[in-house]
Amino acid sequence: MEVTIRRPDDFHVHFRRGRILRTVVPYTASWFKRALVMPNTDPPILSAKSAEKYQQEIASAARNRDFQPLMTIKIVQSTRPEWIPAARRAGVIAGKGYPTGVTTNAADGIRNFFSLRDVFAAMEEENMPLSLHGEQPGVFCLDREKAFLTTLEWLSRNFPRLRIVLEHITTRAAVSRVRALPDKVAATITAHHLVLTLDDVIGEKLRPHNFCLPVAKSPEDREAIRQAAVSGDPKFFFGSDSAPHPVADKERADGNPGLFTAPLTLPLLAQVFEEEGKLDRLKNFTSVFGALFYDLPANEGSLTLANEPAAVPYTIPYGTSYSSGFREAIVPFMAGKVLSWSVKDSNYLSARIPLSP
Amino acid sequence: MEVTIRRPDDFHVHFRRGRILRTVVPYTASWFKRALVMPNTDPPILSAKSAEKYQQEIASAARNRDFQPLMTIKIVQSTRPEWIPAARRAGVIAGKGYPTGVTTNAADGIRNFFSLRDVFAAMEEENMPLSLHGEQPGVFCLDREKAFLTTLEWLSRNFPRLRIVLEHITTRAAVSRVRALPDKVAATITAHHLVLTLDDVIGEKLRPHNFCLPVAKSPEDREAIRQAAVSGDPKFFFGSDSAPHPVADKERADGNPGLFTAPLTLPLLAQVFEEEGKLDRLKNFTSVFGALFYDLPANEGSLTLANEPAAVPYTIPYGTSYSSGFREAIVPFMAGKVLSWSVKDSNYLSARIPLSP
Repeated sequence: MEVTIRRPDDFHVHFRRGRILRTVVPYTASWFKRALVMPNTDPPILSAKSAEKYQQEIASAARNRDFQPLMTIKIVQSTRPEWIPAARRAGVIAGKGYPTGVTTNAADGIRNFFSLRDVFAAMEEENMPLSLHGEQPGVFCLDREKAFLTTLEWLSRNFPRLRIVLEHITTRAAVSRVRALPDKVAATITAHHLVLTLDDVIGEKLRPHNFCLPVAKSPEDREAIRQAAVSGDPKFFFGSDSAPHPVADKERADGNPGLFTAPLTLPLLAQVFEEEGKLDRLKNFTSVFGALFYDLPANEGSLTLANEPAAVPYTIPYGTSYSSGFREAIVPFMAGKVLSWSVKDSNYLSARIPLSP
Repeated sequence: MEVTIRRPDDFHVHFRRGRILRTVVPYTASWFKRALVMPNTDPPILSAKSAEKYQQEIASAARNRDFQPLMTIKIVQSTRPEWIPAARRAGVIAGKGYPTGVTTNAADGIRNFFSLRDVFAAMEEENMPLSLHGEQPGVFCLDREKAFLTTLEWLSRNFPRLRIVLEHITTRAAVSRVRALPDKVAATITAHHLVLTLDDVIGEKLRPHNFCLPVAKSPEDREAIRQAAVSGDPKFFFGSDSAPHPVADKERADGNPGLFTAPLTLPLLAQVFEEEGKLDRLKNFTSVFGALFYDLPANEGSLTLANEPAAVPYTIPYGTSYSSGFREAIVPFMAGKVLSWSVKDSNYLSARIPLSP
């Protein structure tokens, strides 16, 4: 069986900088025409100028010249309203807001959404979407996404023309609220949240390579996310949240959140959409609804997935020397597992497992 | 301030075997007169004979000669009723049941409680308590303890003279059910579950040295456990569940559950009981209610805690060579933290921090 989709976009990805960036960008660029690049690097991308420089670094790491990184700036407590039109003129696509401390490099995040209302008004005026890590700090971990929905609702009510994306949703509550709010409010869904629950993180062993924020929730929550993804509702589209970390930053006393999913996003999505009997809706989820929401042109070209099994590599080294060994490597999500789908004519995830006779 | 308690008992501890055992036993033996030793070693303690041998290994590792390891056998799917009187005659104190797969070395655990009713009847007949890891396999991780309560109720109803201990309870639901069931049903509470919530495991970073099973739950659950511990209700008594692992088995892709708390149990309990304004009830929790439940004589002697700060060591090496380095070490719970209480005249946790002038 094969399924051909319009060339897809990934509306949420972390590339980091430097050596890791040069290793991970080709995975995303080989399959996706465009990717919305998150600004929580160290140092962060706060302005048009740093976004332009970062965009060049990404573009030169992509082997295929037509890959288009879509840039964001980080909305922090000190962001000034006048930075918004400047960023928009420089081609920045969206502003990303992190409540303070909710994930990697978010210590400088937003402490008080109300105090930034002039920034949100400027974004509304400039027609620049607001992308949100939707978790409320200081709340019990499993309740943070739900607790943030009041902030989402406040933003939607007070800035009715502002386009808002609640990123990487993980709960039934978020699915319901996004559905209930006006059309300007949408949500991205990752591939990994379609398959993980909290059991995969803490159920038996502690599994850092299944640990991300927002953390995967209950089977009921996962079911709600899956049904939203395959629903055909244009409010829900794909953003991988692929977030590479060196294995040394994952397998440690204080392990970082984030999963490197770029090598397997599309095969995993195909597997899930097939399980749900909705393969015909994969194209809209990966290649249509996101571009519509962001008001971007439809991509040219296509990409074909086939239900031919492929193995996810155990590690992806990025060190400069073999002697640096295993600690200078990224362990991708589902490392060593076999997926039932793969991308045709791709250089990635091409170590096909022969079908048993 | 000082508080003097009758010499305490720890009614739930893991000592492992070999080199780790020789490292960890002195921590428990220095403060506690007796400890109920869990049988989920590799290989497991299934019979009177292996319990006797294990008891000798523990006793010879304790530096103080009067330390008394109380032995258990593991109740597994293949346990025979006739093993129970033999174990009882050999001085085995209790049988410990693990539902299959719920924690370290529980793959051989109980698949079907109903099919073991002759074993439970033999335990009832021999007046041997049944100690239980109370989690239902195959259920969402946060619901496992609650789901197991129906099994607890079934056991209590069908074996009314059997003494049953639900170990290391973590939920409000377990506290309520244990209270509601007859006096033959009691529960142990650890020190770490009085201070941890799930936020400390997955809230921001992934913290393997806060990961145990049952996993710490919500702030509301923790509050219920704390109130049970300080309530003065003899159904709730102390069992540390101290469970050492090499750091290499904690900080890895599939990290083991279990916290090594033996170096700090009593100071941490004193801190919690002081916070709750119930220091006068510490003695019953650590030194009276457990012995009453297990029908053991009251300990001679006493132990004094003082509110003098002490630092928990970062690591406790157990390797045979310095060159084996950090990976052959145990990271204790709260490593590097300062506790406000310490045990007087103890060789352990004696690296006192000077009080600021």
